[in-house]
Amino acid sequence: MRKNQVEIITIGDEILIGQIVDTNSAWMARELNNAGFEVHRTVSVHDNDKQIAAALNEALDKVDIVLITGGIGPTKDDMTKQTLCTFFETELVYNESVYQNIVDLFANRNLQINELTKNQAYVPKCSDIIQNKAGTAPILWFNKSEKVVVAMPGVPYEMQLAMSNDILPRLLERFRTSVLIHKTIQVYGYSESALALKIADWENALPQNIRLAYLPNLAVIKLRLSGVSDEASGLEFTLNRQIESLKEMLGSAIFAYEDVSMEQLIADLLSDQHKTIATAESCTGGYVAHRITAIPGSSRYFRGAVTAYSNDLKISLLGVDRNDLEHEGAVSKTIVEQMAKGARTYLKTDIAIATSGIAGPDGGTDEKPVGSVWISVSTKNETRSRLFRFGNIRNINIQRATQAAFLMLREMLVR
Amino acid sequence: MRKNQVEIITIGDEILIGQIVDTNSAWMARELNNAGFEVHRTVSVHDNDKQIAAALNEALDKVDIVLITGGIGPTKDDMTKQTLCTFFETELVYNESVYQNIVDLFANRNLQINELTKNQAYVPKCSDIIQNKAGTAPILWFNKSEKVVVAMPGVPYEMQLAMSNDILPRLLERFRTSVLIHKTIQVYGYSESALALKIADWENALPQNIRLAYLPNLAVIKLRLSGVSDEASGLEFTLNRQIESLKEMLGSAIFAYEDVSMEQLIADLLSDQHKTIATAESCTGGYVAHRITAIPGSSRYFRGAVTAYSNDLKISLLGVDRNDLEHEGAVSKTIVEQMAKGARTYLKTDIAIATSGIAGPDGGTDEKPVGSVWISVSTKNETRSRLFRFGNIRNINIQRATQAAFLMLREMLVR
Repeated sequence: MRKNQVEIITIGDEILIGQIVDTNSAWMARELNNAGFEVHRTVSVHDNDKQIAAALNEALDKVDIVLITGGIGPTKDDMTKQTLCTFFETELVYNESVYQNIVDLFANRNLQINELTKNQAYVPKCSDIIQNKAGTAPILWFNKSEKVVVAMPGVPYEMQLAMSNDILPRLLERFRTSVLIHKTIQVYGYSESALALKIADWENALPQNIRLAYLPNLAVIKLRLSGVSDEASGLEFTLNRQIESLKEMLGSAIFAYEDVSMEQLIADLLSDQHKTIATAESCTGGYVAHRITAIPGSSRYFRGAVTAYSNDLKISLLGVDRNDLEHEGAVSKTIVEQMAKGARTYLKTDIAIATSGIAGPDGGTDEKPVGSVWISVSTKNETRSRLFRFGNIRNINIQRATQAAFLMLREMLVR
Repeated sequence: MRKNQVEIITIGDEILIGQIVDTNSAWMARELNNAGFEVHRTVSVHDNDKQIAAALNEALDKVDIVLITGGIGPTKDDMTKQTLCTFFETELVYNESVYQNIVDLFANRNLQINELTKNQAYVPKCSDIIQNKAGTAPILWFNKSEKVVVAMPGVPYEMQLAMSNDILPRLLERFRTSVLIHKTIQVYGYSESALALKIADWENALPQNIRLAYLPNLAVIKLRLSGVSDEASGLEFTLNRQIESLKEMLGSAIFAYEDVSMEQLIADLLSDQHKTIATAESCTGGYVAHRITAIPGSSRYFRGAVTAYSNDLKISLLGVDRNDLEHEGAVSKTIVEQMAKGARTYLKTDIAIATSGIAGPDGGTDEKPVGSVWISVSTKNETRSRLFRFGNIRNINIQRATQAAFLMLREMLVR
């Protein structure tokens, strides 16, 4: 048995009737992989004591680390805590620090503590407690011989906070033996298979201790190099040399040398250049603005946005010409450029992004089928516009258009 | 062992490194549940013969029906077909009808058949073959004593086509199932524990064949009642009677009697009442508009949005009073109401939503800590505003504020 193998158990009837998609497993798997752990398998079971215990037994037969999410809420359908007590032959005891954590949390939210909430402060006697910074259910950490079982809440952001701040660091301290380094570069302008063909010889010649993963998402492919070694500086050197080779092959198709979000990349460029931005959105319906403002501190460079779904708002709020609108239609180069320039003028920014298209599923014509999106980025000196043809799925079209707009903006900022 | 229990096994390294989210399990679980089957659990394993065989053995110990997706493609990393041959002590044989299916498929797509594709026509001798109408990998159906194992491709739409057209009908024919009915109602204004206390007596008195689940998300709790019976109409009656009791206890805290999204609920109300809407957003940065426009056809009631991050855009685009802004600050009742009224006027709608707050993580003061958000909903006859105190996490605050705005809007629409 390898020392760094993990099994993930997600608990909840809602998963097994298909009411929710289990995104916790994927999130945890990705983070664990990045930290050098290997996920052996994932299992989803009902809120049922026998099933939970069986899954736990099977997992501990195979791996050293078992991570559990779900079923530790205050209500009757949540069985995990009681099942863990039975499993570890212990009992629930009152924990004052957990209670205090709940008191603080509720005070912030102006909520009253009731009996059921108070029950959250009862925890298995033999478990280490990690406070939940975003909810009432504490994280329970159990040691069993050389093995570790951790039970977390199923609420995604509570789980993610605990994993990032507490659980991953503790697991790394306890289980990591060799050095693991990940390097991510981000590429655009290639399909996954075209990129794979382009770098095939290089990929085949990678040293044994370096693995490559392709992580495609919308128009972008992340290439992740993961190296394992006994020693950090030599590994760092080897990885950097491999990335130099990639740079020679791919040139300007590489737009980032770290695993950073597109909106953070844009944020850094705009901040560095002391430039302000606005958006004028039609088909993206505010999503570009939402992505920009997801970054803390975005008010330094983001001034505002106009989502002009209706044509007369394109005229009144963005100064689009009524005649042009009638003749060329909203989904046209003329209009998207007027929207971008209008936003720059009316919202008084250095740069503006505009989108106008047919997100679908209906509203397409032969000439302008669903998925047709015009995007324009305008600065004082230059306005660039491009027509994209995406697919038929509304939310994917909105995401793709936003990604494409960010890539166009970035190109204009890095020259 | 119940006759209608299913275990789902999804196969693929990409699931266990978190590169993709396993949406197949949720889709299958939902369809199976609707057809009266119960998903006992789901397991995801690597493309590894030992793991696949182990999962299969464990599943067949517990249930009569095992559904497998993934790992039956043509490339080197796909192990499922060979593993199934070993498991069922059989061998691969050439199947002309599968080959013909591939030939037809490729002809339609103008593709050449290569050696790897031809291998898809080799199938386990003892399996029933179900043709894949959308891809090259045939569906393999195995009978083992009274039990059934089905292997399907992992490509979602290929799996979905086969499930809907072939596998579910065959399973229904073969396994007599009892009726399973789910009812969801949605509640707001309660914490999970407060709600549990409120309905404790009712919950404890539920008939044996009805189960209750709490599904909290942001400010909303979904209550799901799941009933099992031999007979549909009686069960339907029983469930409806239970929901009537809930209605008596919870009254207007119930805002939906189906499992529908908040933006769809709003969409239906606005469409029915022929009302138009706009948003004026500060701290939510366009997210309210994005959620509204995620619904197909939203252009019928949504006219547009102004995201006014900077104060002078609040003045120029929404008509907020400069003096009031200076004296009361942007995060105040006065300003959020002026934003809402301004949006209604300038964007010419019946209703407007406005948000102004401190999303965080920085920017808070003693008086207005991070997480303070004013929300206003304004119609021609009435403007309602409320101050919320959320937490410290930026993206959660944005989501909570949006949810709260929708709930306020809904309250004003349903009167």
